[in-house]
Amino acid sequence: MRQFVVIGCGRFGASVAKTLYSLGYDVLAIDKDEETIQEISDSVTHAVQADAVDENALKTLGIRNFDVAVVTIGSDVQASIMAALIAKDLGVTTVIAKAKSELHAKVLYKIGVDRVVFPERDMGVRVAHNLVSNNILDYIELAPDYSIVEIAALDEWSDKTLKELQLPHRYGINVMAIKRGKEINISPYADDEIKGGDILIVIGHNQDLRKLEKKSQ
Amino acid sequence: MRQFVVIGCGRFGASVAKTLYSLGYDVLAIDKDEETIQEISDSVTHAVQADAVDENALKTLGIRNFDVAVVTIGSDVQASIMAALIAKDLGVTTVIAKAKSELHAKVLYKIGVDRVVFPERDMGVRVAHNLVSNNILDYIELAPDYSIVEIAALDEWSDKTLKELQLPHRYGINVMAIKRGKEINISPYADDEIKGGDILIVIGHNQDLRKLEKKSQ
Ligand SMILES: Nc1ncnc2c1ncn2[C@@H]1O[C@H](COP(=O)(O)OP(=O)(O)OP(=O)(O)O)[C@@H](O)[C@H]1O
Ligand SMILES: Nc1ncnc2c1ncn2[C@@H]1O[C@H](COP(=O)(O)OP(=O)(O)OP(=O)(O)O)[C@@H](O)[C@H]1O
Ligand SMILES: [Ca+2]
Ligand SMILES: [Ca+2]
Ligand SMILES: [Ca+2]
Ligand SMILES: [Ca+2]
Repeated sequence: MRQFVVIGCGRFGASVAKTLYSLGYDVLAIDKDEETIQEISDSVTHAVQADAVDENALKTLGIRNFDVAVVTIGSDVQASIMAALIAKDLGVTTVIAKAKSELHAKVLYKIGVDRVVFPERDMGVRVAHNLVSNNILDYIELAPDYSIVEIAALDEWSDKTLKELQLPHRYGINVMAIKRGKEINISPYADDEIKGGDILIVIGHNQDLRKLEKKSQ
Repeated sequence: MRQFVVIGCGRFGASVAKTLYSLGYDVLAIDKDEETIQEISDSVTHAVQADAVDENALKTLGIRNFDVAVVTIGSDVQASIMAALIAKDLGVTTVIAKAKSELHAKVLYKIGVDRVVFPERDMGVRVAHNLVSNNILDYIELAPDYSIVEIAALDEWSDKTLKELQLPHRYGINVMAIKRGKEINISPYADDEIKGGDILIVIGHNQDLRKLEKKSQ
């Protein structure tokens, strides 16, 4: 079982740490702020107040035994870079770090960070896409031109079967699953009927998906 | 065409504003910080330095004409709430706001905010899931128990057809699409062959997906 250390427990770091712990992994959470550490202490394996740019403190915590370090210090770019460097130096196999800018990311990669993430930027893109299409609830961009989207069934689709609706022909989309309340049908048949309130998970070309979004506004 | 005003242009707000603008929408970006406004000015329709808790300033900017306001002020909870309230009062149809805690979200809903988002928390959950499964590249949680994941094909699947692989039977997953470089096949047939480096988009029960993740580590 891999062991994770999360360095910095702001909103992003705390969420990473709690989720890993809830998935059954060992998680050490570190933050320089005592109150933050107290708040998270029940939701991770260990929570320790320490300054992540203090190499000796990290050494004492046995950081080198961890498989993955997630550095989520945000505003203080210098501290983020130092903490990532120390984790790498101490021998953590995989170091992930959050960056606030492309320049920050570049430096992180230079010092050997394995993966850089931009949580605010990425979620901004997702939320913007969601905003312009009321009925698109979530999406995965598969390729520059194709996406999977969760989409609320149009009213006019109610009580029609997939065969009747001819969605691939009329909208260029393929229905991969149908959600109805807590139920989910992951291999819909041509004879399955759409009901009001259904959520469809569909795959298609972005252009076709956009046409459908317009139609449903 | 709906018009958007983004109040607060930190990492999240700037990304929302730029994405909406790049999708072809009119975007007014507001931040109290002059430098932030200068940086974003080329990536939105208008960028204006103003304090969002100053009702007169927002009135003068014609905020009431906007269809959607996205309030992304982060650390200053009081300013976030005030700005959302003013936008609602001035008659913006839809107000979305970013919250830093459940309590913050509760207050936002109380004052009439239409949708509250937690970008750092949500992205923390996503990144944690990605971390524990090297081969899962992105995912949508469809229901508490089902997800769609982008997954790198296992080496042992290379040069076998979907029929031979029997993935629904062996792993409980359905393959919905196959990505190969820039190409994407959104209606794979039983006779289609998997190649090394392929990315599969699959749907399945979380338990089955986790088994597959373990296998590929
Ligand atoms: N040198 C350090 N050592 C340990 N923890 C630190 C250090 N510097 C900052 N932190 C902690 O990292 C966390 C995240 O930092 P900060 O709030 O600046 O980033 P952020 O990007 O705004 O966070 P988020 O958006 O995830 O809430 C904070 O809880 C902070 O106390
Ligand atoms: N009263 C205000 N009026 C206008 N803009 C404001 C106001 N208060 C804060 N802002 C701006 O909102 C933006 C986001 O605020 P802040 O950096 O505190 O949040 P954050 O959650 O850490 O942001 P992010 O994680 O998205 O970078 C900043 O650019 C800040 O200048
Ligand atoms: Ca160990
Ligand atoms: Ca943030
Ligand atoms: Ca207008
Ligand atoms: Ca911050």
